[in-house]
Amino acid sequence: MSQAQEKRRPGRRPGTADTRGEILAAARRIFAEKGFDKATIRGIAREAAVDPALVHHYFDSKEGVFVAAMQLPVDPGKVIPAILSGPRDQIGRRLATLILTITSDAQAREPVMALMRTAMTNEQAVTMIREFITRAVLSRAADTLGVPPLRMEAAFAQMFGIVMMRYIVKLEPLASAEIDEVIDLVAPTVQRYIDGD
Amino acid sequence: MSQAQEKRRPGRRPGTADTRGEILAAARRIFAEKGFDKATIRGIAREAAVDPALVHHYFDSKEGVFVAAMQLPVDPGKVIPAILSGPRDQIGRRLATLILTITSDAQAREPVMALMRTAMTNEQAVTMIREFITRAVLSRAADTLGVPPLRMEAAFAQMFGIVMMRYIVKLEPLASAEIDEVIDLVAPTVQRYIDGD
Repeated sequence: MSQAQEKRRPGRRPGTADTRGEILAAARRIFAEKGFDKATIRGIAREAAVDPALVHHYFDSKEGVFVAAMQLPVDPGKVIPAILSGPRDQIGRRLATLILTITSDAQAREPVMALMRTAMTNEQAVTMIREFITRAVLSRAADTLGVPPLRMEAAFAQMFGIVMMRYIVKLEPLASAEIDEVIDLVAPTVQRYIDGD
Repeated sequence: MSQAQEKRRPGRRPGTADTRGEILAAARRIFAEKGFDKATIRGIAREAAVDPALVHHYFDSKEGVFVAAMQLPVDPGKVIPAILSGPRDQIGRRLATLILTITSDAQAREPVMALMRTAMTNEQAVTMIREFITRAVLSRAADTLGVPPLRMEAAFAQMFGIVMMRYIVKLEPLASAEIDEVIDLVAPTVQRYIDGD
């Protein structure tokens, strides 16, 4: 951390208990204002009046900052490579299992739902969410698998729709179905989009 | 219209220019309060201080009142039987075409989006929306086609997810794709849920 940065806000010490929280608050402002693509670690550090190295130290990457700032239950940068690296003919099942397992936990689900609620009602937030989904999730999967982006988006739309209908609209029997039954139902759909059938 | 009903609110005449609008305002209050299933034409008429026959006259059915009150672009009670009555192996395509054609018109789409926004943020509205989707759309389709309700819900979730990602989140290339390309992409998925593959 540079002395110059520190001097901007007198009394601030690097890495105090609330430095991490202040970086995240700054990140939420920057992401909302600039979107995900145009936000930078440097810009977030400036907003929080800390050295960019400290942001890197805490969160590793811009994606890591976003995941922490939005309290997302998983970092796509970590789980997606793991999902994609297994047998290709089981990717649909692994993706469906991951998404349905994470969202089955109410505490893990809530921040994702909060983000979707915001997206529905706030045009600025939509840009940030669209760019994050595109960069961190869909482009990564489409590139790694060699699947056309439109097909990855259809697969994503299927999983998104299932989560919304299960947990927000609470359609029955979907809302009360065992998670394995839901996985069996949608995994073949996701797999077909990946296979190009 | 009975004289007794008329006497409740002196000066009100049957079928004046704003009677229809007053019935719809009353319907919105009743649907929000009681949900779709427990709302009745009689209860809506009472709330609007008109004779139930007048509500029937204007809107035909409780579903018709809901469609008008929420300004929905189509009445599922009219379009679904038409969709389901054609060749069974083309139902996926007809459903996908209907939903994507209706939602491609911004004016027709807006009330549907408004309803979904409300559902995301208002627990009371969710009940009304869930009950309407279940009675007016999904149960009708599942019963007519002999498809398990869970599969109809997965098909509905696919179409819902596509509309959300195309028009709200605006994922590219999905948002800019030609409607025919999107239909080609999702119609086989909807058809497979119906066929039980």
